[in-house]
Amino acid sequence: MKFNKKLQSIKTYEAGKPIELVVREFGIEPKDIVKLASNENPYGCSVEVQHAVGEILSHMALYPDDSMMKLKEALSVRFNVAHDALIIGSGSDQVIEFIMHAKANQNSKILINSVTFAMYEIYAKHIGAEIIRTTSQRHDLDEFYELYMKEKPDIIFLCTPNNPTGDAIDKSEMFSFLEKIDSETLVVVDGAYMEYAAFKDASKSISPRELIEKFDNVVYLGTFSKAYGLGGMRVGYGISHNAIIKELYKLRPPFNITTLSLEAASVALENADFVNECIALNFKEMKRYEKFAKEQKIDIIESYTNFVTLCFNNNINSTQLSDKLLQKGMIVRDLSGYGMNAIRVTVGTKEQNDRFFELALELI
Amino acid sequence: MKFNKKLQSIKTYEAGKPIELVVREFGIEPKDIVKLASNENPYGCSVEVQHAVGEILSHMALYPDDSMMKLKEALSVRFNVAHDALIIGSGSDQVIEFIMHAKANQNSKILINSVTFAMYEIYAKHIGAEIIRTTSQRHDLDEFYELYMKEKPDIIFLCTPNNPTGDAIDKSEMFSFLEKIDSETLVVVDGAYMEYAAFKDASKSISPRELIEKFDNVVYLGTFSKAYGLGGMRVGYGISHNAIIKELYKLRPPFNITTLSLEAASVALENADFVNECIALNFKEMKRYEKFAKEQKIDIIESYTNFVTLCFNNNINSTQLSDKLLQKGMIVRDLSGYGMNAIRVTVGTKEQNDRFFELALELI
Repeated sequence: MKFNKKLQSIKTYEAGKPIELVVREFGIEPKDIVKLASNENPYGCSVEVQHAVGEILSHMALYPDDSMMKLKEALSVRFNVAHDALIIGSGSDQVIEFIMHAKANQNSKILINSVTFAMYEIYAKHIGAEIIRTTSQRHDLDEFYELYMKEKPDIIFLCTPNNPTGDAIDKSEMFSFLEKIDSETLVVVDGAYMEYAAFKDASKSISPRELIEKFDNVVYLGTFSKAYGLGGMRVGYGISHNAIIKELYKLRPPFNITTLSLEAASVALENADFVNECIALNFKEMKRYEKFAKEQKIDIIESYTNFVTLCFNNNINSTQLSDKLLQKGMIVRDLSGYGMNAIRVTVGTKEQNDRFFELALELI
Repeated sequence: MKFNKKLQSIKTYEAGKPIELVVREFGIEPKDIVKLASNENPYGCSVEVQHAVGEILSHMALYPDDSMMKLKEALSVRFNVAHDALIIGSGSDQVIEFIMHAKANQNSKILINSVTFAMYEIYAKHIGAEIIRTTSQRHDLDEFYELYMKEKPDIIFLCTPNNPTGDAIDKSEMFSFLEKIDSETLVVVDGAYMEYAAFKDASKSISPRELIEKFDNVVYLGTFSKAYGLGGMRVGYGISHNAIIKELYKLRPPFNITTLSLEAASVALENADFVNECIALNFKEMKRYEKFAKEQKIDIIESYTNFVTLCFNNNINSTQLSDKLLQKGMIVRDLSGYGMNAIRVTVGTKEQNDRFFELALELI
């Protein structure tokens, strides 16, 4: 059977290996596996969230409240924006998908950073749009502007802090850039790790409300998968002008968020203390990675997230190292697929990081 | 900002009103609301499922096993098909979306029954494909064949039992029809309510394994939202030849099923007794609706599902009746949007049905 031609060029997203897979492939006991590959919150989600979800298990039979009133209200309070400035997706991924299908087509160009979140390209390929990449590894907004002028893209993605490198764009630089972009070009500011950046350095902190007040062509993306500790529940959101949200809503499938996920995310938002404690612990533990890298003479990219990117010179091969770590039950992300001789390691709990340092010293 | 033109014609899916909305709109206490609008399993999901999910609440922080090994194995055992004949979606809706984006484009025609599941048309509009409808309210496969010969559609949807009418196609008739369809035309057999039809009448029972063994151009769809009592968890599946599944997989976003949903669906499949008991109770209670309709001289379509469709003559207006029922806290589905002066009522528990009959007698 013939299918649409565009499918030929779609490569599937390579997810961090789940613990279940390592159990199956290497016969390692789950308790001996440490997963530092998907930037989950290593402290999990709060007991309040677990308790709230545990209370409504019998609701699994009922379709979700498709107006998502409770979660919208919680997000509305958190970000000081109206309900109609919000769209909720099955992960912020799904909001990217809505944006791509609403704004782009097979004649479109999509401008992204040379190294960035893989789903931008994958969703662009779903509709056969062309991807334009910068050359700089960090978001160089001068280069973005040059390419914007030359290529006239329909959509620009700015990922800050950037995944998988961890660096972040200065707010002032970003706002100057956005002022030069015409209002027909949609700019996506992907803040999946923004809670971490805002904690570490106010100059990197982007407020969705301020962003959409100043610019009518921007969509801010956020997620519950990282700082909020709900990677398994698939909830993300987009914040933008109502006129844009209205169009994106047309592509939202009904019931795109499960009943339990709506509850988990709503309660997680009430729990700012838990999230802040996790973030504080994250940066405390991150210092140990910085020290480790310095001692081992490994380059580390300054990170505004819950992961670190270790860049090797020629005497270490990132793929081989990742494989060896995997065989010992330590799952990290090899970045060779991004053209980097580097690994991305989620900053785990003290014990998880101890284990990483122990194995890394043994294997490097 | 300009968006893709196709968005202009997309109407959003009108879901059954959730209990939360009726609480908000009419100030009725949740305990006084009966929702018979979305064909959920009124007996909920089994305690075993609730227990299993309750055991892994701390896993909410971890991304799901994206290989979905446990659920695929359970489905593979249930239907006696290989893992690579399976694709799992966020509801069977999402598999419809994959099919549409993989096979159709803006030049495509999609053939569907005159009255059928609304998402076929909505997803067709997402890509700008043209919908061709039969005129007959029931699936008239002769008419389908005529339109197939005339219009050369890329995709044909057969919904059996059909939603929102409840009638089902004979297996022998369907197989004769499928034999006449060329192998380049994709036929989707949507069996969202098949567990009910198979229980009631073996001649309506379609086995996915037999279907895909005989035909290499067919995708069978199933769901956990109905008989399995997991409407809130968003899990459905497609079963087809590996060559088709492979193409659909290219459009599947990573982590499209939550960690808790994967567990719930896997455990639900182990629980055939619970599901069978629910289905037996469903048809026992359905007899009461048949008796009620007969007594009230209301037409009822013979149903192979967990809902009944009551068709009125001119002295009852389905929209007005639905509204009056809603004000009393009874949520049913008005079918005027489908061009029918009818309501669709989920067959509930004995107590829920008692309440429906009581209110209906008062209001009709």
